Amino acid sequence: MSLADRVRFPEFLSRTMTAEQAAALIPHGVNVGMSGFTGAGYPKALPQAIAQHAKSEHAAGRPYKINVWTGASTAAEMDGALAEAGALGQRLPFNTDPTCRARINAGEIDFIDMHLSHVAQHAWFGFLGPMSVAVVEVLGVTEDGRLIPSTAVGNNKTWLEIADKVILEVNTKPPAKMEGMHDIYYGTAIPPRRVPIALTHADDRIGEPYLRVDPAKVVAVVETHKGDRDNVFAQPDANSNLIAASIIDFLAHEMKMGRLPKEMLPIQSGVGNVANAVLAGLLTGPFENLLGFTEVLQDGMLDLLRAGKMSRASATSISLSGSAYRDFEENIDFYRERIILRPQEISNHPELVRRLGVIAMNSMIEADIYGNINSTHVMGTGMMNGIGGSGDFARNGYLSFFVTPSVAKGGKISCIVPMCSHVDHTEHDTQIIVTEQGLADLRGLSPRKRAQVIIDRCAHPDFRPQLQDYFDRAQRQGALHTPHILGEALSWHQRFVETGDMRA
Amino acid sequence: MSLADRVRFPEFLSRTMTAEQAAALIPHGVNVGMSGFTGAGYPKALPQAIAQHAKSEHAAGRPYKINVWTGASTAAEMDGALAEAGALGQRLPFNTDPTCRARINAGEIDFIDMHLSHVAQHAWFGFLGPMSVAVVEVLGVTEDGRLIPSTAVGNNKTWLEIADKVILEVNTKPPAKMEGMHDIYYGTAIPPRRVPIALTHADDRIGEPYLRVDPAKVVAVVETHKGDRDNVFAQPDANSNLIAASIIDFLAHEMKMGRLPKEMLPIQSGVGNVANAVLAGLLTGPFENLLGFTEVLQDGMLDLLRAGKMSRASATSISLSGSAYRDFEENIDFYRERIILRPQEISNHPELVRRLGVIAMNSMIEADIYGNINSTHVMGTGMMNGIGGSGDFARNGYLSFFVTPSVAKGGKISCIVPMCSHVDHTEHDTQIIVTEQGLADLRGLSPRKRAQVIIDRCAHPDFRPQLQDYFDRAQRQGALHTPHILGEALSWHQRFVETGDMRA
Repeated sequence: MSLADRVRFPEFLSRTMTAEQAAALIPHGVNVGMSGFTGAGYPKALPQAIAQHAKSEHAAGRPYKINVWTGASTAAEMDGALAEAGALGQRLPFNTDPTCRARINAGEIDFIDMHLSHVAQHAWFGFLGPMSVAVVEVLGVTEDGRLIPSTAVGNNKTWLEIADKVILEVNTKPPAKMEGMHDIYYGTAIPPRRVPIALTHADDRIGEPYLRVDPAKVVAVVETHKGDRDNVFAQPDANSNLIAASIIDFLAHEMKMGRLPKEMLPIQSGVGNVANAVLAGLLTGPFENLLGFTEVLQDGMLDLLRAGKMSRASATSISLSGSAYRDFEENIDFYRERIILRPQEISNHPELVRRLGVIAMNSMIEADIYGNINSTHVMGTGMMNGIGGSGDFARNGYLSFFVTPSVAKGGKISCIVPMCSHVDHTEHDTQIIVTEQGLADLRGLSPRKRAQVIIDRCAHPDFRPQLQDYFDRAQRQGALHTPHILGEALSWHQRFVETGDMRA
Repeated sequence: MSLADRVRFPEFLSRTMTAEQAAALIPHGVNVGMSGFTGAGYPKALPQAIAQHAKSEHAAGRPYKINVWTGASTAAEMDGALAEAGALGQRLPFNTDPTCRARINAGEIDFIDMHLSHVAQHAWFGFLGPMSVAVVEVLGVTEDGRLIPSTAVGNNKTWLEIADKVILEVNTKPPAKMEGMHDIYYGTAIPPRRVPIALTHADDRIGEPYLRVDPAKVVAVVETHKGDRDNVFAQPDANSNLIAASIIDFLAHEMKMGRLPKEMLPIQSGVGNVANAVLAGLLTGPFENLLGFTEVLQDGMLDLLRAGKMSRASATSISLSGSAYRDFEENIDFYRERIILRPQEISNHPELVRRLGVIAMNSMIEADIYGNINSTHVMGTGMMNGIGGSGDFARNGYLSFFVTPSVAKGGKISCIVPMCSHVDHTEHDTQIIVTEQGLADLRGLSPRKRAQVIIDRCAHPDFRPQLQDYFDRAQRQGALHTPHILGEALSWHQRFVETGDMRA
């Protein structure tokens, strides 16, 4: 399919140029909004051209860095290329690229970790400064100049509204028949003019299928023909399957006890192997007519849709492996009726997550014995990816699960620790912690009761005696609401930093 | 005014009894929902009778403890008396009584610290177990058996709905003319049947002025005639005034820069001296026609209403000093038109706080150099009061301030520390930190930039070099996203525990 088939608005066709030409329109030092959410829908050509441009400028002794705001993570072609070229000044709100991560942790990039539901509004409020350019991947342009969104919506609506200039990457690779799949809500406003968001079911459509843009702002149109990152995951391993089974048993039990409605509630699932295993577990689980209300639609949710176990899924991004993507492409008519892609301020909106009663399932780096959660920092100092939407869902969901294998690095790291080295979700937002060892239901428990159940049910046997010993000794001194030995609370992490092993 | 004047529903009059008789209806081991929010609207007679009953049972060698759930804090007559009698098994979600606090920190009471917006729904979902009895203070009963709420609404609506039995304390002391002041919303539901809450302005009325109760559940009516706790605060001191002035200057600047709408946005103010000083500052500040959307209406907000600077205030509780209360009582016709008391699940609802764009101002125990906030734990282990509604407002508000004097205990404690000893609000939820030293605007800053601005603007000069030294040394090792020296991060607290002084 040619660019002219995709861009049905003649005015834009006349602004077609190469990525290199378009990159030259982005000056040093500005804020740039880019599309992209979880390795989907990111611009494929511009970032590499910008990286080249940055290298040329640096070679000529001139500074060149830009601040890049996205929906969430992108790919090596974008964050990797820009980071490698030293072209990133500031980066928000999420990153999974290893090159970019290394530069963040080397102190070379100012990374700002934000709740994904906060990003659009903080930009719109003016809290992050003015946006010079938006670079947005789209699938095409309608006759009247509206944009057909790509595999991720993210913050594109907001970037197109607040940027001074817009560069469109028209990607002719994803199926044109995705047109109509998106639901872009234009009812948001800045306080005091906000109104209720009229969404009461996960699969309601409340917006329009296209992104709007002021045609006068579109300074360049660049053609690409390239798939998203191959978001492939390992097959669920034994630990992931144990975690998934615990969660499904728990949900079935809650339903039996009348604490979970018979209709079931919409599912949110974080990204990763464990999350995919839980979704795989639902394939053979007792629940029917499931709904998804999540930020990222992964392989596991596509499987549920295909099998008819899930009737519809709402997300802001489709992030698939190569093989799942081929299924999506081949059966686009089937999936278009069953998948709704929304802006991330809607997919993650506290108002909607609480109203719908979403069941939130997110992975973590570590939990402490009192139920505080570290989702972001390795040994308290190094950024892994970011908080993403986990806080949006954990705080506001009906039930909130945090999951991890009980140990990492071949058993050298316990994922249950005396005190988290960084806290992203506090004891107030954590309900259920699950490892392959078991499930700790923390609802209605005071901190010391939580500690005992977490140690008993979730800790790995190699670390359980050491945790129990810490907890016992902590209770022999000081205040007993949340007993701690402050001089020792972070010693497990310190030991790992010094010796490469948390074990005493 | 006699009980018969207040209780206009004859069926209830026939169930009048003494507090002692009513207390005997509450067996050992059950969950009891009580009214009360920030020292207002709590039952005055029953808790003392229950405490007496508990003592008799204990003397007879029988166990007697109950689990008490409220709106928020009560007073010595309730939490103090019950704690002193050893009658509290579990207590949630908030406490300020010193006797009760001491028992919590001695490990004798299971205290569960919760977001105030979560309590009603978690009880309703069944997550906290069944409620046997509700003990609710009301001002009276209408001819058709509806209840006229008291000075606090809190979770009363939910307690009356879910409890098996109801005991009413009819307090004839607060003015009968408060009738009509309350707005009890009956549109909440359990997912998946929730709908948008149709409130778009802080002063909208969306409910009805009375609490409903199934008359068959009312097993006792007890008369009291007693005012709420005298919620008196010290006059704002020099530090509080400096903090208030910084906040008001900042808000005026934001408005000038176009980042805060000209109409201003609704104000939420936490409890305490600093919060009251900020409200006092608004009395002479440049803003007119203010609206309050807060959980507790304190003296400072009453002053704003009286002066005409604030047009209306929405809260769940009126918590006043004795002198302010007299003003309230004498001018009840004036205040009834300007104050709206709602259930706390509405006053603190994430949906509404975000929609209205509330400006959140909450006090804290300590902040760390990266902007994490400890609101609850003294030296990481001892519970102070609880998180209250600070998380509901900080996460969802338009702007979120956390305030504290820079030092405590005569300069021995720095309220800016290398790492918080407990985290209640993460770096993602903190925008502006204010001490008497100055204001740190953290919006759009990465962790290391946040650290420098917090050290420079907010730390006390006695601790600033020590903080700078920690931060400098932390940057010479390990990952540089959030630099820390784990073996030293909590050493300031440890030093205080050991020596009574954080200073090196």
